Amino acid sequence: MNSSFPPPAIVLVRPQLGENIGTAARAMLNFGLTEMRLVAPRDGWPNPAAGPAASGADAVLDGARVFDTVAEATADCAHVYATTVRKRGVTKPVLTPEQASAAIHTEVGKSAILFGAERSGLATDDVALARSIVTVPINPDFSSLNLAQAVILIAYEWSRTRGLASPTETELDPPAPQAELEGMIAQLDAMLEAAGYFRPPERIPATKRALRGVLTKPGWTSQEVRTLRGVLSALKGRKRQRG
Amino acid sequence: MNSSFPPPAIVLVRPQLGENIGTAARAMLNFGLTEMRLVAPRDGWPNPAAGPAASGADAVLDGARVFDTVAEATADCAHVYATTVRKRGVTKPVLTPEQASAAIHTEVGKSAILFGAERSGLATDDVALARSIVTVPINPDFSSLNLAQAVILIAYEWSRTRGLASPTETELDPPAPQAELEGMIAQLDAMLEAAGYFRPPERIPATKRALRGVLTKPGWTSQEVRTLRGVLSALKGRKRQRG
Repeated sequence: MNSSFPPPAIVLVRPQLGENIGTAARAMLNFGLTEMRLVAPRDGWPNPAAGPAASGADAVLDGARVFDTVAEATADCAHVYATTVRKRGVTKPVLTPEQASAAIHTEVGKSAILFGAERSGLATDDVALARSIVTVPINPDFSSLNLAQAVILIAYEWSRTRGLASPTETELDPPAPQAELEGMIAQLDAMLEAAGYFRPPERIPATKRALRGVLTKPGWTSQEVRTLRGVLSALKGRKRQRG
Repeated sequence: MNSSFPPPAIVLVRPQLGENIGTAARAMLNFGLTEMRLVAPRDGWPNPAAGPAASGADAVLDGARVFDTVAEATADCAHVYATTVRKRGVTKPVLTPEQASAAIHTEVGKSAILFGAERSGLATDDVALARSIVTVPINPDFSSLNLAQAVILIAYEWSRTRGLASPTETELDPPAPQAELEGMIAQLDAMLEAAGYFRPPERIPATKRALRGVLTKPGWTSQEVRTLRGVLSALKGRKRQRG
């Protein structure tokens, strides 16, 4: 496999039951995915219920890494996909598992695929971090995928389309790792805060989400993010000179 | 849907646990399959453990028909597929789920897909009844699909290849007209000019080109461009207040 197109990390966001984490690991390994990341698992980690449910996929569980936030869990990832069963009122591209898999096989850089908690799925703020949404086309009258089923369908598609993908389009630079993008967003946030842009207070979360959406969309490279940070610094420097 | 290509019947052969029958029903209904047939379920039928595991897919369970033998269960079927994880020493065509689904959608007549018992899978005699074998391409070092997972992958493929199943992609807004983008770039240019960002003079054209490249890449919508112009105005307003 070309290391420019590494297998995606499966990120379980606030999973509740250890058993489901184990079943997800089993689902992953069936299709050759081994990298699991856990964001704030409800019952801590390791979880004694996970092992038996993994039915032998212990290596996946042993290698699982735990993070406090989605941002930290995806800090090194160039592409972040959020799985949701239903579309949210978010203006991001909505891909089928097939389309997402094709992208993962052809776009340079590490990918992360986010899966929400058993009951509630991904929070709006989790989805906001992602570049794209992945939705399994499902019976509109009966949409009831459990966590491991969602994972296995994505893993299956990744495996299925791996052989089909014909990558090596031009070697475009990959999008900057999520952490670099977050750094730029934080810089802009601080400047806008100081400029009194965020008001009224009750609109702040929605405004920040909208802004994040605009800045997440491009998939800027590290170089582009540096350019933009230079722009922001210049604009801020001006104020300092005048202030 | 064309009635010449009816949805396949899912045939569980000697299933052991009622819970797995329920989970299989749930898996089916997610992808629009409703016809379940049971061959000699170990614990009889109905099975009280099935309902809770079906998570609402009760209609599938209620409609399930019970048979003594695979031959009876498939008597009305023109096409019988046997799912096995590993290939058996049987001289039958081996299809991927994708190939089998394509056949089901294009070959006239009712299809049945056989799934074996949890532990043992299909017996050689069951496989012998089938026209073709369906094998999920799986990690050779870790092949551990449970019954409902095998069912959901087949059901997913059937739904995926039907074509109807493609999700209504969100109607994304088109990129803003070029003039709107130019307006934003001009606004930023002016601000950067004032901030002394463009220097030395001989680098100005290259710097402006780079910046334009970064801002053209996203294909922002009109709404997104308006948001960004608001951001720029806020940053500029701040300077005025201080200047």
